[in-house]
Amino acid sequence: MLENIRIVLINTFHPGNIGAAARAMKNMGLKQLWLVDPQEFPSPEADARAAGGIDLLENAVVVNTLEEAIADCQLVLGTSARTQRSFDLPLVDARTAATQMVAESAQGQIALVFGRETMGLHNNELQQCNLHVYIPANPEYPVLNVAQAIQLLCYELWIAAQAPVSQPAQDTYPRQREMALFYEHLEKVLRLTQFIIPQHEGKVLDKLRRYFNRSRPEKTELNMLRGILASVEETVERLKSPAEQNKDKQP
Amino acid sequence: MLENIRIVLINTFHPGNIGAAARAMKNMGLKQLWLVDPQEFPSPEADARAAGGIDLLENAVVVNTLEEAIADCQLVLGTSARTQRSFDLPLVDARTAATQMVAESAQGQIALVFGRETMGLHNNELQQCNLHVYIPANPEYPVLNVAQAIQLLCYELWIAAQAPVSQPAQDTYPRQREMALFYEHLEKVLRLTQFIIPQHEGKVLDKLRRYFNRSRPEKTELNMLRGILASVEETVERLKSPAEQNKDKQP
Repeated sequence: MLENIRIVLINTFHPGNIGAAARAMKNMGLKQLWLVDPQEFPSPEADARAAGGIDLLENAVVVNTLEEAIADCQLVLGTSARTQRSFDLPLVDARTAATQMVAESAQGQIALVFGRETMGLHNNELQQCNLHVYIPANPEYPVLNVAQAIQLLCYELWIAAQAPVSQPAQDTYPRQREMALFYEHLEKVLRLTQFIIPQHEGKVLDKLRRYFNRSRPEKTELNMLRGILASVEETVERLKSPAEQNKDKQP
Repeated sequence: MLENIRIVLINTFHPGNIGAAARAMKNMGLKQLWLVDPQEFPSPEADARAAGGIDLLENAVVVNTLEEAIADCQLVLGTSARTQRSFDLPLVDARTAATQMVAESAQGQIALVFGRETMGLHNNELQQCNLHVYIPANPEYPVLNVAQAIQLLCYELWIAAQAPVSQPAQDTYPRQREMALFYEHLEKVLRLTQFIIPQHEGKVLDKLRRYFNRSRPEKTELNMLRGILASVEETVERLKSPAEQNKDKQP
């Protein structure tokens, strides 16, 4: 189900790279191109480099933020030339990642995210991913042009898609927007329980987000977690004195 | 031994593609770039696209013909988006080709040849190859940009080079220039035996060249073939009457 796998490009500087990405995707049977805040698009240079992949440019979805580009995805993979586990994300090579993407693609939408030409993905963007993908390369100079990196991943996806389909997982995964609602809920409850104290917030939410993104709760598991949060809220509310409850309602 | 594997580009039109090829090669640990009659080289656009692979451009070897670029190679692979066996060459996919190249690269020089942007390799160029390599791709649009195709093959070479080395073949293969001498010898003998008749030459030599390139005789086998040709020459000369021998010596 390559149709369910989207390529997301963040802040692309050279429109030629967007065109080259479209051609590379078309060559390998991918169809969904999402552009987050591109510097210049549409562009004649992108059209020229797209060649026979011009229809992917015409159907490209342009959005302002990464959150919008991945909201309906159940699995988000961030690409980076860095191969250290600097983000506490599981690190997988391109071939392994492609196999996993194809195996899950029958169940829902998947995003493969590429960063800007000079900087790659920012840390806050990698934190929104479930997996960190790298391309095996010469350690002396492992930084590929972004369109070339897209070509390689799409090629591995095409090859993985030709292989016999492996058994899909027993349960399906939540969408990123459900995860976002969970994080909102979690933050609200942690403030309620004073696990997070204003002016001393630290990086606790970032760390929790990394953990849950890495652990990838299934839908039923996420529902349980939401249920736990709700039960905490109810308990705290119930235990608060009527006086405190009235104080809370003051502006 | 990735150092023994060269990338040969024929008649490249866009200098940007030469630069992108250099970067892709450097990313994957390849070093030898050979350019056959490029349209524009050196070029600022090539330098810009090469990025950290600029040293490959500085060391690139520019020649006029494919023959010069492969003269010292024992294995020559031609890339083409065509996947029919239209040239009577063994057809292998990129991954299989990379494994074979790496396995043989300890023994001698290997060339991986890419054609022009619009046309690919001409038939007479593919006929100089031992293998025809293709990249698995979407049959609706399998034509990759040449720099992207180079990136994919170099990536497969890098991965193959990381794997444990398989046993090299028992015998080594002749260089292309030895094959060229063999073809000269063969033609001379076939004219001597009147297998080839002037004005009715047909395509017999092309067909023989395809056959021998595909069959890849080893060095000792090629020596045997040369010995057979020499024995034919000697026999014919010996059987010619003294009168005929004198006639041959007339201007």
